[in-house]
Amino acid sequence: RVRKMLLDLPASDVALLLESSPTKTRDELWRLLDADFHGDVIEELSEDVRNGIISKMMPATVVDALEEMDTDDLAETLSSLPDNVLQSILKSMDAQDRLRAEKALSYGEETAGFIMNTDTITLRPDVSIDVVLRYLRLKTELPENTDTLYVVDRQDILIGTVSLATLLTASPDISVTDIMDDEPDAISADTPDDEVASMFERYNWLSAPVVDNEHKLVGRITIDDVVDIIREDAEHSMMSMAGLDDEEDTFAPVGQSTKRRSVWLGVNLVTALLAAAVSDMFEATLSQLAVLAILNTIVPSMGGVAGNQTLTLVIRGMALGHVTGSNSVWLVRKELAIGFFNGMIWAILIAGVIALWKQDYMLGAVIAFAMMMNMMAAGLAGATLPIIMKRLNIDPALAGSVILTTITDVVGIFAFLGTATLFLL
Amino acid sequence: RVRKMLLDLPASDVALLLESSPTKTRDELWRLLDADFHGDVIEELSEDVRNGIISKMMPATVVDALEEMDTDDLAETLSSLPDNVLQSILKSMDAQDRLRAEKALSYGEETAGFIMNTDTITLRPDVSIDVVLRYLRLKTELPENTDTLYVVDRQDILIGTVSLATLLTASPDISVTDIMDDEPDAISADTPDDEVASMFERYNWLSAPVVDNEHKLVGRITIDDVVDIIREDAEHSMMSMAGLDDEEDTFAPVGQSTKRRSVWLGVNLVTALLAAAVSDMFEATLSQLAVLAILNTIVPSMGGVAGNQTLTLVIRGMALGHVTGSNSVWLVRKELAIGFFNGMIWAILIAGVIALWKQDYMLGAVIAFAMMMNMMAAGLAGATLPIIMKRLNIDPALAGSVILTTITDVVGIFAFLGTATLFLL
Ligand SMILES: [Mg+2]
Ligand SMILES: [Mg+2]
Ligand SMILES: [Mg+2]
Ligand SMILES: [Mg+2]
Ligand SMILES: [Mg+2]
Ligand SMILES: [Mg+2]
Ligand SMILES: [Mg+2]
Ligand SMILES: [Mg+2]
Ligand SMILES: [Mg+2]
Ligand SMILES: [Mg+2]
Ligand SMILES: [Mg+2]
Ligand SMILES: [Mg+2]
Ligand SMILES: [Mg+2]
Repeated sequence: RVRKMLLDLPASDVALLLESSPTKTRDELWRLLDADFHGDVIEELSEDVRNGIISKMMPATVVDALEEMDTDDLAETLSSLPDNVLQSILKSMDAQDRLRAEKALSYGEETAGFIMNTDTITLRPDVSIDVVLRYLRLKTELPENTDTLYVVDRQDILIGTVSLATLLTASPDISVTDIMDDEPDAISADTPDDEVASMFERYNWLSAPVVDNEHKLVGRITIDDVVDIIREDAEHSMMSMAGLDDEEDTFAPVGQSTKRRSVWLGVNLVTALLAAAVSDMFEATLSQLAVLAILNTIVPSMGGVAGNQTLTLVIRGMALGHVTGSNSVWLVRKELAIGFFNGMIWAILIAGVIALWKQDYMLGAVIAFAMMMNMMAAGLAGATLPIIMKRLNIDPALAGSVILTTITDVVGIFAFLGTATLFLL
Repeated sequence: RVRKMLLDLPASDVALLLESSPTKTRDELWRLLDADFHGDVIEELSEDVRNGIISKMMPATVVDALEEMDTDDLAETLSSLPDNVLQSILKSMDAQDRLRAEKALSYGEETAGFIMNTDTITLRPDVSIDVVLRYLRLKTELPENTDTLYVVDRQDILIGTVSLATLLTASPDISVTDIMDDEPDAISADTPDDEVASMFERYNWLSAPVVDNEHKLVGRITIDDVVDIIREDAEHSMMSMAGLDDEEDTFAPVGQSTKRRSVWLGVNLVTALLAAAVSDMFEATLSQLAVLAILNTIVPSMGGVAGNQTLTLVIRGMALGHVTGSNSVWLVRKELAIGFFNGMIWAILIAGVIALWKQDYMLGAVIAFAMMMNMMAAGLAGATLPIIMKRLNIDPALAGSVILTTITDVVGIFAFLGTATLFLL
């Protein structure tokens, strides 16, 4: 019964079902699928889930599933496989398939060449629309998501584009040159995929031609694949900020998940011990005033939250292309100013609360001063860290939040216990 | 000079430039723009920036800018305006424009009706392809991003779709019924926009027809607008987890940003005081053993990180539709198990470190026990909180992380200081 239901679903829905199942159920469901459906489903799976399934299949079966894939899906699927699995699959291929696979893999990952399809329809500039229409009718169908035809010269150099909509509204007796857009927006094959994505987003494209260094047409990128990149990149920041891999499989076995997450927990333990070491410097103070131990977490906590707000905003701003070299100084100053004003607000408030709670005005003043310092440190660190890291080519979403909270912890504890040692003992 | 450069840029690039500028520069740039360019730029701006600009414009100028907008952009622009600005703009409109505006606003925000365009091209089922082609040639151009024509009956009921690609490959003498897809995927006008987005993502659509309750065609949704929703929704989680509004303008004036961020800092202050209150219960213990004050932050910090990993993963899983009622029990159990194993690992490690650092085995055992407890609490809370909140219709990204860290702070402090009081005094 399950099998019958499964066979009626479109590939994308089967993929969703597999993604939402624990590994055991996933393997069982996979066995129920028809072999000629494998490729379509594999295309729609995320990296971790896809690799899990492929590594359990026979190489020859994988080769069959790959045969009908578009070049972009082929490149994506093969490139993420562990090396030994990839090698055994390439070995099972015949010469022609292997050539195709190697070509698909020849562009760097995360580039336009990697995500493009090679199924373009090309026209010559001098033919008439009528001839084009008859030529298209000879094909029974156009490649999936075709919205534009490409005009190339004898050397395959892209000289124009004609959208299907333009073609349909054109008079049959004029020629392609008369209606083509002769300044088409073409993407170079080595453009990073996130730049491709922001161009599609910004200019509302449905597809775009990809050209090589000599401006020869090599393929086209379609919006459905760009949507996946947009989703991935947007998720990437959120997942990285929590120390997770963005391809992480929610339903992976416990052992695998434990191992993956422990890396980040280990890093955090080191930073927590660092903060403890700062407190340790003030052991004498803490043993005389237990109240400091009680309040010691408030200032670091507020600094962490404020810094994280700034960090998140700047990381998003960089992803959207809003934060650039020319406005980053303005932005750092702004965040420092916000830190100053928010520091004032919360310093006054916490001073009041502590003075009332602990009946100690001096203690209130000490925590207010520490709050002020830490909020400014948070604003400064939150704004400068991602900008510096990006220049150093370090992912600010991944490393940013650890470094940030380490800074706000250390500054917060140092300012609070240090001032307390000076003024309260 | 700036003006000349500005006028040569496409609207999307002008919008990007405005988004990347502090308010003052933004206003100056805006003044340099031609009035007939206003509408195109406004469409591409994010909510905060758009509202800032519109509220400084004369209502009559705004009306002019809105005139040429698509219904979806009109709805989006008007709906986000503060009420007084909206009223004065509606008042400046003539009867016809006001009717159009009210119709665009008649669908609930974040529904399919709200993001659709009304510029569909419809066909009758019984005409021949040849007639369709001649009809299209009479129009000089098709509406932007048209990839599909809609087949409706006399009552406007949607009975089929014909893609431009199919039309171009069809023989001229057959009729529309012969080539149309007679089971088209239509979206109901009241479908939530995030469901629309996941359908587009999953099925790789370029556009989709929108129908009312009687299955009458009312408009179409195009992928370029869906891309914006995907981006927004993906950003929403990340921004909310940091307590930020997802439309927050990175370059807003200091005062506005300070005010917005202080809400979240206020909430955090309350939770930090709550954690301090828990420590306060153990004042006697802390005053006897200063070392506890030094180590008091380690266990809560690890619990916070572990819980946040689980929370982030579950929130993403829910957004992708992977976490459903049927697998959530499995997932909670899995996260609890991960908490158990990660608890073991870090309990043993921290026990070793503390035993060596502080030369106190009993203290090592106490912190290990607290670590174990808190990691399990973190896994349990991280997995159950978003599931419960979603059922209660509370945004798990916004409220989840505060509640989570409050739990891990309280459990961590209580477990550590409580066990210490029992065994170390
Ligand atoms: Mg990847
Ligand atoms: Mg395919
Ligand atoms: Mg767009
Ligand atoms: Mg593709
Ligand atoms: Mg794809
Ligand atoms: Mg990527
Ligand atoms: Mg919105
Ligand atoms: Mg428009
Ligand atoms: Mg939404
Ligand atoms: Mg897709
Ligand atoms: Mg639109
Ligand atoms: Mg739009
Ligand atoms: Mg909004």
